[in-house]
Amino acid sequence: MAGFPILRSRRVRGTPYSERVEAAGLGGYTVYNHMLVATAFRSMEEDCAHLKQHVQLWDVACERQLEITGPDARRLAVLMSARDLSGAEPGRCYYTPVTDANGGMLNDPVALCLGEDRFWFSLADSDLLFWALGLAEGLGLNVRICEPDVSPLGIQGPKSDELASRVFGDGVRALKFFRFGYFPFRGRELLVARSGWSHQGGFEVYLDDGSLGLELWDALWEAGRDLEVRAGCPNLIERIESGLLSYGNDMTREDTPLECGLERFCGLDSDREFVGKSALLRQREEGVKRRLTGLRVDARIASISATLPCRFGGAAAGYVTSAAYSPDFGATLAFAMLDIAAAAPGAEVEVEHDGVVSEALVCAIPFEK
Amino acid sequence: MAGFPILRSRRVRGTPYSERVEAAGLGGYTVYNHMLVATAFRSMEEDCAHLKQHVQLWDVACERQLEITGPDARRLAVLMSARDLSGAEPGRCYYTPVTDANGGMLNDPVALCLGEDRFWFSLADSDLLFWALGLAEGLGLNVRICEPDVSPLGIQGPKSDELASRVFGDGVRALKFFRFGYFPFRGRELLVARSGWSHQGGFEVYLDDGSLGLELWDALWEAGRDLEVRAGCPNLIERIESGLLSYGNDMTREDTPLECGLERFCGLDSDREFVGKSALLRQREEGVKRRLTGLRVDARIASISATLPCRFGGAAAGYVTSAAYSPDFGATLAFAMLDIAAAAPGAEVEVEHDGVVSEALVCAIPFEK
Repeated sequence: MAGFPILRSRRVRGTPYSERVEAAGLGGYTVYNHMLVATAFRSMEEDCAHLKQHVQLWDVACERQLEITGPDARRLAVLMSARDLSGAEPGRCYYTPVTDANGGMLNDPVALCLGEDRFWFSLADSDLLFWALGLAEGLGLNVRICEPDVSPLGIQGPKSDELASRVFGDGVRALKFFRFGYFPFRGRELLVARSGWSHQGGFEVYLDDGSLGLELWDALWEAGRDLEVRAGCPNLIERIESGLLSYGNDMTREDTPLECGLERFCGLDSDREFVGKSALLRQREEGVKRRLTGLRVDARIASISATLPCRFGGAAAGYVTSAAYSPDFGATLAFAMLDIAAAAPGAEVEVEHDGVVSEALVCAIPFEK
Repeated sequence: MAGFPILRSRRVRGTPYSERVEAAGLGGYTVYNHMLVATAFRSMEEDCAHLKQHVQLWDVACERQLEITGPDARRLAVLMSARDLSGAEPGRCYYTPVTDANGGMLNDPVALCLGEDRFWFSLADSDLLFWALGLAEGLGLNVRICEPDVSPLGIQGPKSDELASRVFGDGVRALKFFRFGYFPFRGRELLVARSGWSHQGGFEVYLDDGSLGLELWDALWEAGRDLEVRAGCPNLIERIESGLLSYGNDMTREDTPLECGLERFCGLDSDREFVGKSALLRQREEGVKRRLTGLRVDARIASISATLPCRFGGAAAGYVTSAAYSPDFGATLAFAMLDIAAAAPGAEVEVEHDGVVSEALVCAIPFEK
């Protein structure tokens, strides 16, 4: 893997699992919420193939938790979620866009309702805690906002149920998608959710004591030997194949959830207010002028380091936000934010990359073989 | 340099200068405000020695600007600055802690007053834009908040005046410390400030058009050949020697400006309000219980990847936040957040590192030879 080395510091933190991650053949790092997270082990292709067949441990401690507690916790959680969380129930996870007053996306966390007045927002890569703090301060809300010592560890892949049940008991098998429960580990009760940033199935263990990190990793590792468990990480190829968007890549504050195809996660017809609602209602009425779409590009692109310009009918029409070559699809799959005229499945656009121009076919997200 | 490679993406951006930085013998990257920034070229020691003798170009585009404009811009800038910016004048830079309601530090930017109703906050490593957005939304302020296309390029070192004047004209020599002016470059007027994250003197060019990045770099590079200009970056050794604190390392939301020795930048006796003022006034009255101090450690520590525990009189007394071996001081210099009992210059503490315990002498910041 090309690239320049990065060093750990207090500002760019390692995780409770870093020691095992680095010993497991780490191929590269990125930084996410001021924390290191792997980008590959053997190679993105090999990692992807293994993920689809077996089971992997993912150090996703970088999914930091924004914790909101106190009398106004639910009010704040509702106000900052496009998804209607007013009836959120303990034990459930809610994927929700978070928007500013213009409807621009600030993050797309998974909110966990821990109790009537207690929420975690499991964050994508931005300091959403600062938005929550600012809102609470400006509105004079009675809440406590912090980043607790919680370090998610992912168990992902088709053998996840088998591995998780060996360590946490058969009860985890009964967890439904985006539900969580508490399961015993070394005399503690750990929050385990059926969730994760792949479409291969699995769990996330929200370890709430970093000092147990290596013990948790080792217990899963030992229990998974005959399942061919490996260290893994969010996989660029698999997440694009599966239509999973990345905040900072495929969506930014310049984009709204409607433009990103996330309208189904926005409770626009609910009575309750949230920041950005009026802007999003207006945009829904007027119709979006651009939209995030899938692309199949007629060229082999392993990954991109910045957006790639797109043209439609000879004119600039947007840009590619993420791309990867998928061995299973036998094609380069990409996401692109395109002018609405170019965004219809079946349209043909041109993509500029590596000094050449390639044809690309617009298609729906998620991709279909 | 040890470490694992990091790849560029849209989420972890390169800069308008990255091409030249990588061609100039880059030794390592870190990530700062979702952007790449160099950590070393030849070595931290060699870079440091060169910086003190000659002149360097620093790609500090990662010092992103939080721009606040509009009728309530000054009100918001004042509210979010511990420094009293109510009388801020165009053409001046103001270093200011930014605190939450508890006085916890959120950032320590340099605020630039661009006009009566227009401010930039040149940011340390946190999404302070989200705090500003949240406050403005909660308080209903009439402001526009954005991150403009501004990519600072540092010119640092004793030959900075000579190099800058060759490119921007002799007028830059007259700039006083923490003042800025506009100077011609290729038919444009660029904002140039006498500032920078070293104590070797120099300027920061706030390039407001990324497409001119390489041209600006090349002009300075060509003009500086006989001055032995090199690519450089914020240098761990020099910044510790000089007493420059790093947000995320030496100060976090857990720390107040008073604990960090930044009281002189807090306008606590001014009439105007700012977020955190009452908490800081209370802390000033009660006295701080811990304080950031300098340490000379009796061991060679090149850098640290996490805090190091400190002991005083046999008990836990705080932790080291940054450390580097200084060839010029012939000693390892460090910053440590210590219990007030241990924080008096002359006190002797113990530091745990690399599996051993070393003696360390508490001293004032900045360090004196």
